[in-house]
Amino acid sequence: MTSQTFDALCIGNAICDVFAHVEEDFLARESLVKGSMRLIDTEEAVRLYEKMGQTTRISGGSAGNTAAAVASLGGKTAYFGKVAKDDLGDAYRHDMRGTGVHFETPALIDGVPTARSMILITPDGERTMNTYLGACIELSENDVDPQVVAASAFTYMEGYLWDPPAAKRAFLKAAEIAHGAGRKVSLTLSDSFCVDRYRSEFLTMMRDGTIDLLFANEHELRALYETADVDTAIAAVREDCALTALTLGAEGAMAISREKTVRVPAQKVDEIVDLTGAGDLFAAGFLVAQSRDYDLSMSAELGCLCAAEVIGHVGARPERALRQIAAEGGFSI
Amino acid sequence: MTSQTFDALCIGNAICDVFAHVEEDFLARESLVKGSMRLIDTEEAVRLYEKMGQTTRISGGSAGNTAAAVASLGGKTAYFGKVAKDDLGDAYRHDMRGTGVHFETPALIDGVPTARSMILITPDGERTMNTYLGACIELSENDVDPQVVAASAFTYMEGYLWDPPAAKRAFLKAAEIAHGAGRKVSLTLSDSFCVDRYRSEFLTMMRDGTIDLLFANEHELRALYETADVDTAIAAVREDCALTALTLGAEGAMAISREKTVRVPAQKVDEIVDLTGAGDLFAAGFLVAQSRDYDLSMSAELGCLCAAEVIGHVGARPERALRQIAAEGGFSI
Repeated sequence: MTSQTFDALCIGNAICDVFAHVEEDFLARESLVKGSMRLIDTEEAVRLYEKMGQTTRISGGSAGNTAAAVASLGGKTAYFGKVAKDDLGDAYRHDMRGTGVHFETPALIDGVPTARSMILITPDGERTMNTYLGACIELSENDVDPQVVAASAFTYMEGYLWDPPAAKRAFLKAAEIAHGAGRKVSLTLSDSFCVDRYRSEFLTMMRDGTIDLLFANEHELRALYETADVDTAIAAVREDCALTALTLGAEGAMAISREKTVRVPAQKVDEIVDLTGAGDLFAAGFLVAQSRDYDLSMSAELGCLCAAEVIGHVGARPERALRQIAAEGGFSI
Repeated sequence: MTSQTFDALCIGNAICDVFAHVEEDFLARESLVKGSMRLIDTEEAVRLYEKMGQTTRISGGSAGNTAAAVASLGGKTAYFGKVAKDDLGDAYRHDMRGTGVHFETPALIDGVPTARSMILITPDGERTMNTYLGACIELSENDVDPQVVAASAFTYMEGYLWDPPAAKRAFLKAAEIAHGAGRKVSLTLSDSFCVDRYRSEFLTMMRDGTIDLLFANEHELRALYETADVDTAIAAVREDCALTALTLGAEGAMAISREKTVRVPAQKVDEIVDLTGAGDLFAAGFLVAQSRDYDLSMSAELGCLCAAEVIGHVGARPERALRQIAAEGGFSI
């Protein structure tokens, strides 16, 4: 077994978030389902972008947010994701490296531009995402650096990787290398719409042992098992996956293994500003703790500490150094 | 006199704001003066950018913020500013046009990139700006469209235009055209460091009638007259300029003409999140009101209404439609 270098390798769609504030009737006129993520093509991306007013750009992508948070926490992390050689792609790489993430996936040359998600924020704070996958569709098995995978305690991947076809093969190749090196593989279900698209494939991977650690929130877990009852879903996932980290919003989080279940409360937050990224940052804390052999309870607690930081401000990446927040919470990373 | 089309033409440095959160010791290590704006060259821009972690990008520029706010208020507005033909420049143009601003200044081709200001936010919320002027240095007299100037009730310009040499000539040409068309010319002092750089030129333009309406905050006005006493500065500016709009932070604002002084209180704000853009949005409200022949008191009041919106969130451009806020405040624009 290679000596471990990274707590977590994160693989995901490298996406720039483009935010705009819109009124409720904008969603109605565009026939958009509030709170959903839909995939759009170039033509629709151009059309919708022209209708958005003032925008704000922040590097995003679920697994990208997790990688940035692992680094902020003081953990060692790497990222695989495909950007183009354009300003957005350069900014994405800057933001990753600037926070200390090992990010060497070659940029796409002479192809489509860097992916962007146009996120419409309604006055109630809800977010509706319209994602143009751009360069993400070119992430392939060739971008899976076996040495990095073998050097990572966890290879963590987002369910959204199932959307661009070649990325799914990259995911499966990485999982195989990870297991060959005695490492663990983790999947986040991403969102309940993503679960609806790929339910049977996700369940198969959980059941055949491709996934060692599953991340989900309550909505996603219920969507996975097509049940309104979370306890039914918890009982099912306990059978299907060795370990599940379940986030419960204001109710905190649970860790569910075949042997036991632990539950931790949410961290107190002065004011919840924006829930985006809460799951991504929870995953960062949980993964680092697991990589450092903390028990389930402490792992969930560190996850909740990280999640609490990101919901206190707009944007899905930490503003304060998570390492310091962890230290204040009694963790030394 | 041409029939009026625009309430305000805004001319300024077209700058993309790149925000990052840093610790206090970052400023110390970089020998930066907290709260200041300094100009940096390409080499320093590259060097500093590499040290910034996670970034957020929002179109900015003081007069650009004012133009976006005039449009949000339901006013008619145009903007002159130089961006490059790159992603940041395209985003800048998108954001302007998306909010309804007439923005036709040709992009710079095969030159330096779009300007960017690297804004370091310390934990106390203070902002330290490092501005690379990029394409702004190419804004010239050729970019002054006389028809647009002649069609604008106010030509509003930022003191920062004195930094790129050719822009100063563009400013003076626009002022001449405006006065030739029977229109008014307005200047904002931008910041106290800018006043220190160009004090005598600003005073000359106020005294020779180039400036009809001056915008300043207390720091800038005291810097202009090199006095610690704001009343001394107010007495001096009353002599030097036909009309001055003075913002006083939590104390509201004043309008000072040779004949009279009016004072209005600040609007109540639930929570002050970020003061950036308060002056820019105050100017938007005041200009639109003056263009519509509202009295000084109502003009200052509309300015304060607009400023209150922008300090309730991060970023210097309005998130809510100012037109609606104005309507709630009894104004119909």
